[in-house]
Amino acid sequence: MRYDIAIIGTGPAGLSAAINSKIRNKNIILFGSKDFSSKLIKAPKVNNYLGFYDITGSELKAQFEKHINVMDIGITNERINNIYAMGDYFALMVNEKMYEANAIIVATGIEYTKPLKGEEEFLGKGVGYCATCDAPLYKGKVVTIIGYNRDAEEEANYVSELAEKLYYIPMYNGSYKLRGNIETVNDRPLEIQGDDRVNKLILKSSEINTDGIFVLKDSVAPSQLVPGLAMEGDHIKVDLDMKTNIKGCFAAGDCTGKPYQYMRAAGQGQVAALSAVAYLDSIE
Amino acid sequence: MRYDIAIIGTGPAGLSAAINSKIRNKNIILFGSKDFSSKLIKAPKVNNYLGFYDITGSELKAQFEKHINVMDIGITNERINNIYAMGDYFALMVNEKMYEANAIIVATGIEYTKPLKGEEEFLGKGVGYCATCDAPLYKGKVVTIIGYNRDAEEEANYVSELAEKLYYIPMYNGSYKLRGNIETVNDRPLEIQGDDRVNKLILKSSEINTDGIFVLKDSVAPSQLVPGLAMEGDHIKVDLDMKTNIKGCFAAGDCTGKPYQYMRAAGQGQVAALSAVAYLDSIE
Repeated sequence: MRYDIAIIGTGPAGLSAAINSKIRNKNIILFGSKDFSSKLIKAPKVNNYLGFYDITGSELKAQFEKHINVMDIGITNERINNIYAMGDYFALMVNEKMYEANAIIVATGIEYTKPLKGEEEFLGKGVGYCATCDAPLYKGKVVTIIGYNRDAEEEANYVSELAEKLYYIPMYNGSYKLRGNIETVNDRPLEIQGDDRVNKLILKSSEINTDGIFVLKDSVAPSQLVPGLAMEGDHIKVDLDMKTNIKGCFAAGDCTGKPYQYMRAAGQGQVAALSAVAYLDSIE
Repeated sequence: MRYDIAIIGTGPAGLSAAINSKIRNKNIILFGSKDFSSKLIKAPKVNNYLGFYDITGSELKAQFEKHINVMDIGITNERINNIYAMGDYFALMVNEKMYEANAIIVATGIEYTKPLKGEEEFLGKGVGYCATCDAPLYKGKVVTIIGYNRDAEEEANYVSELAEKLYYIPMYNGSYKLRGNIETVNDRPLEIQGDDRVNKLILKSSEINTDGIFVLKDSVAPSQLVPGLAMEGDHIKVDLDMKTNIKGCFAAGDCTGKPYQYMRAAGQGQVAALSAVAYLDSIE
């Protein structure tokens, strides 16, 4: 099955793109988190989203949730590794699974971390972004998980059931809910090395010999997510219609530039959706 | 007194610009209508403004009103004829009055009518946009009012108390609440003529000798409002920061292009405000 529009991201830009695409009767798939956006739900007070005053981020999130629920828009909670422009459609890779869409809207926000040295080179050759998905490949092997948030702990626990050995490198502070057989390494990863496939992670003051490395972060850089996507600094290069340099690929929200604001993001999500709809009409 | 930012227009773009400027502690003046936007209040149903579902335009308007009221943002209900870029500030002309602001945000929407032939040429030389303001100049003279909406009838009634003769040319259908001494002319205006000043209005099948002509429309074309403003077709040329070609002049909403949508307009209003704030900081 091929979707009309795949939307990646559930912040205000992605949600706005979703409601506007759905209103135009497009068959959409929305990738993201049930929490929508960690930034949004943590916001203590929002006063500059026209129509709501003195509202907390989580109250605003509840309003957004009501909106997409009543419109019957679901969220697919899967981590997309890569999106390939195939000419007349896009292939969205979720490890062993693949989704197809005629147009995509990238609304992944800005909280991504720079890739490690070697990370892009070994992606798919021992480096992955979804530990749970790839776990079966590492039965009896040595796996290293670099975790940027607490969600990563759950994945680590699951993978540790299959792997011979699991190293967990937390990139955040706090206590960790990890199974006893997991070795926590408090060191800073610097470089991924290997030959045909990964075999080593170099850290600031140590090294780990490993068969696989999962980098579990909130989101990946757009240019890494969509190979060939033109950037301007850290942001996706867009025009006023939210078009990127790739035909059928649109972008909205913080990933397109500053100011990082909900209302701007929602407005851009709307424009991206309507541009995607116009694009779909043009290729019919 | 000089304002930090003058915002022209009270649709979603102007209101969003106002709340965002105010939050940044800027001293603002917001020109527009207590009804905000005739388009908005007439909208039967709005489903694509993220956070509100199944809401009427006038309900959405009420939400916006609550927002600006609680932030103590007032609306100055005056018709601006021209805005002149004076180098380091802007002069906003309201007939005999003048306002000053260091930066402006044009959010006047798209429902403007093309100027008549001769209208721009004779502006200030017998052609005006505020009959009530200029009425005293036409005591005992012949005045013609071209009215694009019902509000114009009130102005016509007022001016007719002073003028020797008043012709009223309605550009809309319906019945008119006009004083008995006003002559309604149901004909299409084509051209304004004169020498140093206006002396004649040419209509499709008649002519009127007149000392003054007031063209009372919802809004004027941005390039007419702000002389020198670069356009792209019917729209103000902006970049992604909502900057226009004039330093310190920003634009947002339908006047900058399609799609004509509330959420896009509100998002752009926010960006325009934050760009204006950054501009003000840079010139301090």
